[in-house]
Amino acid sequence: MTEQKSTSAPAPYPGIFLTFEGIDGVGKTTQVQLLAKWIREELGREAITTFEPGDTLLGRSIRTLLLNPEPTAAPVSARAEALLYAADRAQHVHEVILPGLKRGAVVISDRYIDSSLAYQAGGRELSSEQILDMSRLATGDVWPVRTYLLDMSVEQSHRRVAQVRGEQPDRLEEESASFHERTRQAFLKLAQKNPERYLVIDATQSIEQIQAQLRDDVRKLVEQ
Amino acid sequence: MTEQKSTSAPAPYPGIFLTFEGIDGVGKTTQVQLLAKWIREELGREAITTFEPGDTLLGRSIRTLLLNPEPTAAPVSARAEALLYAADRAQHVHEVILPGLKRGAVVISDRYIDSSLAYQAGGRELSSEQILDMSRLATGDVWPVRTYLLDMSVEQSHRRVAQVRGEQPDRLEEESASFHERTRQAFLKLAQKNPERYLVIDATQSIEQIQAQLRDDVRKLVEQ
Repeated sequence: MTEQKSTSAPAPYPGIFLTFEGIDGVGKTTQVQLLAKWIREELGREAITTFEPGDTLLGRSIRTLLLNPEPTAAPVSARAEALLYAADRAQHVHEVILPGLKRGAVVISDRYIDSSLAYQAGGRELSSEQILDMSRLATGDVWPVRTYLLDMSVEQSHRRVAQVRGEQPDRLEEESASFHERTRQAFLKLAQKNPERYLVIDATQSIEQIQAQLRDDVRKLVEQ
Repeated sequence: MTEQKSTSAPAPYPGIFLTFEGIDGVGKTTQVQLLAKWIREELGREAITTFEPGDTLLGRSIRTLLLNPEPTAAPVSARAEALLYAADRAQHVHEVILPGLKRGAVVISDRYIDSSLAYQAGGRELSSEQILDMSRLATGDVWPVRTYLLDMSVEQSHRRVAQVRGEQPDRLEEESASFHERTRQAFLKLAQKNPERYLVIDATQSIEQIQAQLRDDVRKLVEQ
């Protein structure tokens, strides 16, 4: 996984692009919303929150097409599926992320390229390099200046999801647990390989503690 | 345009992959059908004729999506569009071309990667290299062993189309003529860069003369 341009090239727009990554249940959505509110109120800057898979009409049509194929259609190949998700990402960058950055906004995306790399890592048909190449072609090498990885163990994230939903935590199935653990490790490896771009945050801390850490970092980025 | 693997790597399947390229009106469809018939009857081999954009259900859904966007949708970006066409090609290779080649058939495609390179060359948002990269990711580097470029001048191809339709040849608009001429030159340049893969055929010859040239070449390829 080579990301030559991810942290070195100066951004060709006045905005600031931030992404949140991590497995499900670590609290990304809450932190994104609180951070955007703080940026608007305390820093007086426009903040745009968005997410992937991309929230565009084209993106929704693409996902409808993937989830409701023609009854007689052959299964969609791994390559075709990955290219359809790349098209979704291309439109998301074109329609939401880049216009915001060009206007000077702080754009915060809940998941981005790293999620594709982490979740699709170890697939049999496509390598991480190919997934990365597709994402680079899709985005034209638009990378966040900072990626916040909210990290906690798979068991803790699972307990947290059950708590939020008011359920008793199920025993995590072994297969599911090992999938989530592989994904978590893939994120930690990406963080290790991109230390200038990544900030790994202990997601077992309180919401307020995590916010404080995020705000400290964003303040520095804005003042740069 | 680098196509390192296009003509050198030995094909990992028993079939033979042939493609036809050229601007509209040079007679590709006629030649493809006659050649396939001859391969079946004279060589006793299975021959599959296909075309791009790909004739799969997914491919048709993708094109419907591009041609009939949601009324309120933002315009599809050049990158998203190119990735959607790449997904179409990926499915075409997966569903039609590769299964045929693995069975040992002669697969003949009316247009393939080179058409994307020739028609999209000189677009402002995407370079030829990016179009080629998308195609390589889509196909997993499945290249034809031979590409037949049916070549004639834009004026002649235009007269030919009018003749087939029983119309008086219109005067070709200047804009359209220069677009077709650029495309023709792009094909000729691709042929020049890939001499081992390409056979350029003078498409002003009679149907029989062109068939004879094609059959000579296919016989050699089959005997190799």
